[in-house]
Amino acid sequence: MTRIDLNSDLGESYGQWRLGDDETMLDIVTSANVACGFHAGDPSTLLETCRGAAKREVRIGAQVGYNDLAGFGRRFVEIPADELTAEIIYQIGALDGLARVAGSSVRYVKPHGALYNAVVHHREQARAVVDAVRSYDASLPLLGLPGSALLEEAERAGLVVVTEAFADRAYTPEGTLVSRREPGAVLHDPDEVAERVLRMVTEGTVIAIDGSVVPVNAQSVCIHGDSPGATAMAVAVRSRLDAENIDIRSFV
Amino acid sequence: MTRIDLNSDLGESYGQWRLGDDETMLDIVTSANVACGFHAGDPSTLLETCRGAAKREVRIGAQVGYNDLAGFGRRFVEIPADELTAEIIYQIGALDGLARVAGSSVRYVKPHGALYNAVVHHREQARAVVDAVRSYDASLPLLGLPGSALLEEAERAGLVVVTEAFADRAYTPEGTLVSRREPGAVLHDPDEVAERVLRMVTEGTVIAIDGSVVPVNAQSVCIHGDSPGATAMAVAVRSRLDAENIDIRSFV
Amino acid sequence: MTRIDLNSDLGESYGQWRLGDDETMLDIVTSANVACGFHAGDPSTLLETCRGAAKREVRIGAQVGYNDLAGFGRRFVEIPADELTAEIIYQIGALDGLARVAGSSVRYVKPHGALYNAVVHHREQARAVVDAVRSYDASLPLLGLPGSALLEEAERAGLVVVTEAFADRAYTPEGTLVSRREPGAVLHDPDEVAERVLRMVTEGTVIAIDGSVVPVNAQSVCIHGDSPGATAMAVAVRSRLDAENIDIRSFV
Amino acid sequence: MTRIDLNSDLGESYGQWRLGDDETMLDIVTSANVACGFHAGDPSTLLETCRGAAKREVRIGAQVGYNDLAGFGRRFVEIPADELTAEIIYQIGALDGLARVAGSSVRYVKPHGALYNAVVHHREQARAVVDAVRSYDASLPLLGLPGSALLEEAERAGLVVVTEAFADRAYTPEGTLVSRREPGAVLHDPDEVAERVLRMVTEGTVIAIDGSVVPVNAQSVCIHGDSPGATAMAVAVRSRLDAENIDIRSFV
Repeated sequence: MTRIDLNSDLGESYGQWRLGDDETMLDIVTSANVACGFHAGDPSTLLETCRGAAKREVRIGAQVGYNDLAGFGRRFVEIPADELTAEIIYQIGALDGLARVAGSSVRYVKPHGALYNAVVHHREQARAVVDAVRSYDASLPLLGLPGSALLEEAERAGLVVVTEAFADRAYTPEGTLVSRREPGAVLHDPDEVAERVLRMVTEGTVIAIDGSVVPVNAQSVCIHGDSPGATAMAVAVRSRLDAENIDIRSFV
Repeated sequence: MTRIDLNSDLGESYGQWRLGDDETMLDIVTSANVACGFHAGDPSTLLETCRGAAKREVRIGAQVGYNDLAGFGRRFVEIPADELTAEIIYQIGALDGLARVAGSSVRYVKPHGALYNAVVHHREQARAVVDAVRSYDASLPLLGLPGSALLEEAERAGLVVVTEAFADRAYTPEGTLVSRREPGAVLHDPDEVAERVLRMVTEGTVIAIDGSVVPVNAQSVCIHGDSPGATAMAVAVRSRLDAENIDIRSFV
Repeated sequence: MTRIDLNSDLGESYGQWRLGDDETMLDIVTSANVACGFHAGDPSTLLETCRGAAKREVRIGAQVGYNDLAGFGRRFVEIPADELTAEIIYQIGALDGLARVAGSSVRYVKPHGALYNAVVHHREQARAVVDAVRSYDASLPLLGLPGSALLEEAERAGLVVVTEAFADRAYTPEGTLVSRREPGAVLHDPDEVAERVLRMVTEGTVIAIDGSVVPVNAQSVCIHGDSPGATAMAVAVRSRLDAENIDIRSFV
Repeated sequence: MTRIDLNSDLGESYGQWRLGDDETMLDIVTSANVACGFHAGDPSTLLETCRGAAKREVRIGAQVGYNDLAGFGRRFVEIPADELTAEIIYQIGALDGLARVAGSSVRYVKPHGALYNAVVHHREQARAVVDAVRSYDASLPLLGLPGSALLEEAERAGLVVVTEAFADRAYTPEGTLVSRREPGAVLHDPDEVAERVLRMVTEGTVIAIDGSVVPVNAQSVCIHGDSPGATAMAVAVRSRLDAENIDIRSFV
């Protein structure tokens, strides 16, 4: 029986501002990348999201980001490595505290937004993230992009790495993501996306933007829930996988 | 042999801004009330302060406060109890993560500034603090003012409470602190303060502002280190106690 | 011909988080209480809202609040008067700069949230707000609750004051607002609210919660637009007033 | 008679945290680059600094920076141009409001820290700064590094530009600044620095790090005041220039 993990970014509301539908998404995914208060997520929201995850045995991951609420963590910040390491330890610890109160704990770490993109190539920041995870709890896996500097550095440091694919993103013939600036970079049809994820899971391949079949190596698939359309797509993906008896299970 | 704990607020620098002399104070105190990033303390500062404390076996306490960097946590904030509880769990967890990386852990909790003053009487916020500590780790003591709503609620909830006196504050004949708005509320002479602390420790009394002798019940004495003058006073207190062979030891 | 101003809180999105439907509301109201970045409103949002207001000749008011993004300005903060004054000048200036770039300018000031509620009775903070407005531009009117300390202090200082009523709030027989904690404090039926506003405008009265008719003194009526339901209600109020040929016009 | 402007970064305290000695520096400089609250400077501090500047007829400049209090504006942030423009308008407006209340107004704009460094080469951010200044008040000069993208774009847009040199920085034979990472990049001897500034002013040259004499084009010289040593150096520079009857006068 084929097995896959589904992950999604959750806990991204902040005070009066709501974002996403955590309750619905927690019924769909097996891993919740919960914000840690630096790019999103006030403590009350985070505690509630952790409680929802714990109740359903959805694994909680610390989605760490730049200290940039105004930019939602989507602006690259040139922060010195040692400061970044301290900021990430702080974030993991804060979320872990809330997760433990909710009856669970942080089980993995995934960088968010501009930090996620930066550590694909930015080796100094990649090492800073790895240093934070290793010093906090060397048994925590890092979830990231296959081939990224982050996962290379994590492996070198002896950490467990988990690779992910993206449900709604177009791929190049080389197996990398089509830039969001290109036309067709993001897919919008729920059925097409569901079919695509099924193929990733069962065949380990994806149809690239030029029509070629390319291998995709992923232990987890990232789906979004930050809009009603995204939630509908997540429902479609989950239903399609369930219908094919795919074993949807967290990697940890 | 008489025993006392000395505590001080540390880790209160923020980014470019330095406050206090943590290195010097860590050689004097046995308990470090380390800020948690909400009223002061960036993650790099906190990690460094935790490392300094761990190296000297100074106990690390989470000095939790309102989410108010601009006001240094000295402005009362009317925050709903459940939100305050979540904010405090977040802060304890964040500092605990950094403390663990530094080879130690959070060993107690002390509210800061306006929150400290509020929970003397504000029962709802007092309970919110107690709820946070109990749900995070019910073995963590709460350090606070004797007779405060905070310590009452903490005892009711089965938490360990630790009482503190203030080295440089005048006391009323009733044994409460003279308001800072009154003349003579704060003492400035290092020798006088050192003598005063010695009396608190050996006799369990303090000379009140009217000259009467009043009992003071304290397992810990709070000393400040946020100015060169304060640091000098802290040195004087420590020297005086050492000279009398007082057993200066953390309460936990 | 009877005349009234309609005001609403706008510009309350922040970064990735959207709140309210500014474009729709700007077609309904004549005065826009635009956030100033302290409780809500990032600079890009504020500039866009100011541009939308300027285009329609909707007057821009500075909706000043506590420096409390996490609490959306809804938590009372015990801030010293001189610091509050400086914070309010800062906010008015910031919004005025954006409003001028948009081809308009700040034309009045209205406190937001917990500050609005505080200055009904808190005379020190009321004076701090008045001091800020007077020193920034003594020709700017203050929009507030009739009988509030704020408007009393403003009048004493020689400022223009503008009184407002609330479209969707229940009134006591004494003409004050029914506390939000009481049942029936907030009205939800668009037609009832529209009828109510019409009565306020044409007869200067409102039916209180006990059925009695009480006078209501208002040069402006506050309507909300922070949810789809609120926007629908705002549309209903505007339509009802338009149908009766009420002259809907800003007070400045 | 030879003329020069002296500028310095001021208003960089934040809440409880003090930085620099604004009172002393305001007696030395003719242009005060006052922070605007994004990288430093709470509203009370800014108002006080503006009052001190206005009293002495020191010109107030808006020292605009990234929205990064934790990093003191010294971390490059990859912010979209239109958001940066809005953030800069917001900052200029906020400071202008405080400056006007203090009896003066913002008379020029200078980017701070990482933004200052970025706009030497980053043309998109340089244009964003220029757009902000032009749309706020096209008569405001921009103070910056000779040859920078910022000043080029400012001239192209028809703005007045003012060039500056640095009192305590070593220069390359090409007339650019020696990187702070190189040995000898920063000068520490007050007399040497004072002599150096005198030469810049009277001869328009500086002795580069290799001993060669290179032309330096500066209408203003930047001196620091963020430490007791820096203040002493500033005093030495001012005294040396005064002794030579240099006309120390603002450029605007």
